[in-house]
Amino acid sequence: MRILIKDFSSHIGQEIEVSGWLYNKRSSGPIAFLELRDGSGWTQAVAIKNELASEIWNEIERATQESSVIIAGAVSAHPKKPDVYELHLKNFSIVNLSPDYPIAKKEHGPDFLMDNRHLWLRSKKQWAILRLRDAVMTAIAEYLHQQNFIRVDSPIFTPNACEGTTTLFPVPYFDLGTAYLSQSGQLYIEAAIASVGRCYDFGPVFRAEKSKTKRHLTEFWMMDAEAAFVEHEENLRIQEGLVRHIIRYCLEHCAEEFAALERNTENLKKADSDFTRYTYDQAIAKLRELGSDIKYGEDLGNDDEVLLTKDSVVPVFIEKWPKNIKSFYMKRDSANTELVLNDDLIATEGGGELIGGSQREDDFDLLLERIKKEGLNADDYQWYLDLRRYGSVPHSGFGIGLERTVRWLAGAEHIRECIPFPRTIGRLKP
Amino acid sequence: MRILIKDFSSHIGQEIEVSGWLYNKRSSGPIAFLELRDGSGWTQAVAIKNELASEIWNEIERATQESSVIIAGAVSAHPKKPDVYELHLKNFSIVNLSPDYPIAKKEHGPDFLMDNRHLWLRSKKQWAILRLRDAVMTAIAEYLHQQNFIRVDSPIFTPNACEGTTTLFPVPYFDLGTAYLSQSGQLYIEAAIASVGRCYDFGPVFRAEKSKTKRHLTEFWMMDAEAAFVEHEENLRIQEGLVRHIIRYCLEHCAEEFAALERNTENLKKADSDFTRYTYDQAIAKLRELGSDIKYGEDLGNDDEVLLTKDSVVPVFIEKWPKNIKSFYMKRDSANTELVLNDDLIATEGGGELIGGSQREDDFDLLLERIKKEGLNADDYQWYLDLRRYGSVPHSGFGIGLERTVRWLAGAEHIRECIPFPRTIGRLKP
Repeated sequence: MRILIKDFSSHIGQEIEVSGWLYNKRSSGPIAFLELRDGSGWTQAVAIKNELASEIWNEIERATQESSVIIAGAVSAHPKKPDVYELHLKNFSIVNLSPDYPIAKKEHGPDFLMDNRHLWLRSKKQWAILRLRDAVMTAIAEYLHQQNFIRVDSPIFTPNACEGTTTLFPVPYFDLGTAYLSQSGQLYIEAAIASVGRCYDFGPVFRAEKSKTKRHLTEFWMMDAEAAFVEHEENLRIQEGLVRHIIRYCLEHCAEEFAALERNTENLKKADSDFTRYTYDQAIAKLRELGSDIKYGEDLGNDDEVLLTKDSVVPVFIEKWPKNIKSFYMKRDSANTELVLNDDLIATEGGGELIGGSQREDDFDLLLERIKKEGLNADDYQWYLDLRRYGSVPHSGFGIGLERTVRWLAGAEHIRECIPFPRTIGRLKP
Repeated sequence: MRILIKDFSSHIGQEIEVSGWLYNKRSSGPIAFLELRDGSGWTQAVAIKNELASEIWNEIERATQESSVIIAGAVSAHPKKPDVYELHLKNFSIVNLSPDYPIAKKEHGPDFLMDNRHLWLRSKKQWAILRLRDAVMTAIAEYLHQQNFIRVDSPIFTPNACEGTTTLFPVPYFDLGTAYLSQSGQLYIEAAIASVGRCYDFGPVFRAEKSKTKRHLTEFWMMDAEAAFVEHEENLRIQEGLVRHIIRYCLEHCAEEFAALERNTENLKKADSDFTRYTYDQAIAKLRELGSDIKYGEDLGNDDEVLLTKDSVVPVFIEKWPKNIKSFYMKRDSANTELVLNDDLIATEGGGELIGGSQREDDFDLLLERIKKEGLNADDYQWYLDLRRYGSVPHSGFGIGLERTVRWLAGAEHIRECIPFPRTIGRLKP
């Protein structure tokens, strides 16, 4: 019977068959230890020469790193380690012999690994990150559905820019001129709340930014959520609820992945507690106390985010920013109309910004005024203004960056490891 | 207490509050019937003039179609219709008055509706399709995870074409020349099976096709699945399992949506039974019997698909096509090397092609031969050939078009209704 490695625990003592890839082999004279991966997990098969026909032992000797193989044997529990199982090998065959696998056990530079991303994905850490990413996506969909959000995907081809025009990718579009690749689906899902009440999109977005940091990709995945009749306070509660749900879901489902990543999960457990909140004013004051030379009215850089959160065990909201450094669609704070009802959520452990959110301006006149003040073409926004013409409601939303969330949870150094095939200013392959 | 319309059944007899949009109002002298939508569902509030303060009645009279409103009242079960509830109105306030809503109850042409897609989404059928689409996506993720697939998203920016070069959207990409928007993530997820065993992507893909049919979009969503150690027969079983899971999930979760769409769900129930299978040879013979003039070696057009399946209550697989009309990566049938181990899955009721799948060529030399024969540049495919160099395994996969599936399930006329903001050769807005 062919089974998956993850199901070994319910087959102890049985003879089974596993198919996968040999990622390592160690021999000690008449004993060989074969380390095997099948996608669902990792295990070790022990082969003892004098128990096996010579043809089988010869095949074991012939097998190279990353050869695809089928192994039969009896499952046993590791005598000392809990939840560890191994295979006592009875049969072995090579499906495809892999000669000279380029990714050896020695260290490789990042360019070499990225050139071989199609193979590098097989390494244990990359396997763990792929699976963690899948878990994060599942957790997001689960939480949002529990909270009555419906998935409504926004378009990639857009006729105008949502957040500025300098970082857009233009695409020639038939006889209609130029399309731009979406930087955010927010404006579109704002339209859909009047249909389904609460909705979210979740897809790739694009920034033609010439940034070469550990936190930038030209193509990355973003989830935007938007909800009718939700104001600033509830918006923050939904965001906190989502992030804490993601943490809990991953801790519950990804123990093996966190172990492979050598991630300190205690820190993640601690982060699943009431998040800290600063107003922008408080954040600036605290940053200056901590030695930053940031001035009131400036945006926070990554260094500021790290400095501000360095002693916090929970993620930190920074809310109510000056309106003139924030987007036109954010609603003014009625208590101080120089501020907007927005928030950024900063992760712990140097993870940086995960979420940006705000209550949206729902007043037609104020929105139009902001569009004009930003120098945007009001004609391009007539459809968006329609949402304030016909049954406008108080509403709020936010966007969470998938790769930044995965990077934080995985404790990964570079965001390029947190997307299967990263695209950056200098990389379009494989 | 503010509740959702979908939760009315557990609040019978209670006074509650609902927020949403007034989509219709009928008056009969001293009684007004207010039809309300809140995203979660649709309900009717009954207002009786002589029970209400005059200010409240005046507001009811003032309220227009698509005004956003808050209504308080007592929930009651409809005396005759099961699962229908209504509100006995006690209080009413207008959040935002909507003047002259452009989509009246009269018929509008498709261009007008598409120009107003941001508002048209509010109509009951569009609401139902959005929610059905969400259910299909949830059902797909649920089934694939049950079958041990992990989500591994493929890139949108690609350096070369997967299926031909004539229908690509080019994008200038920094100093690296031109990127092309992905037409399929298949080749990429083939790489990931050696990491996670079974995987899928699910995202937008792009075709610069000048087709103006009811089945074509320039931007649409595709789910590609790929599994190691899965051969042709099992590939078909997974596809059939997926489609039947989608049907069952939607029947279970979308009764109200199907009712709004006036969809014959009996036909969908019948489709959840063993799928029919034809070989390509059998399909051609049957089509000619049915009067088609198709010749052996030709691809099936939409008319052929409809003709072939017109009497079938279940979807129909057409398997093992001539290799020279199919893609280079499909594995030859060892029983007849002129054929490949592929399949198309055709829906019932004229729904057309939902899925294309195949076992993939896993032999390095045969794959290289096919790449060269197709006139493709072998250098562009070195990374893909690596997957056959290093631990190649038998593997199979398929792609399912989301909008085509939603169109079939919804019984929608045109695919443009099955994506929130459709993009076609002539449409880039809103």
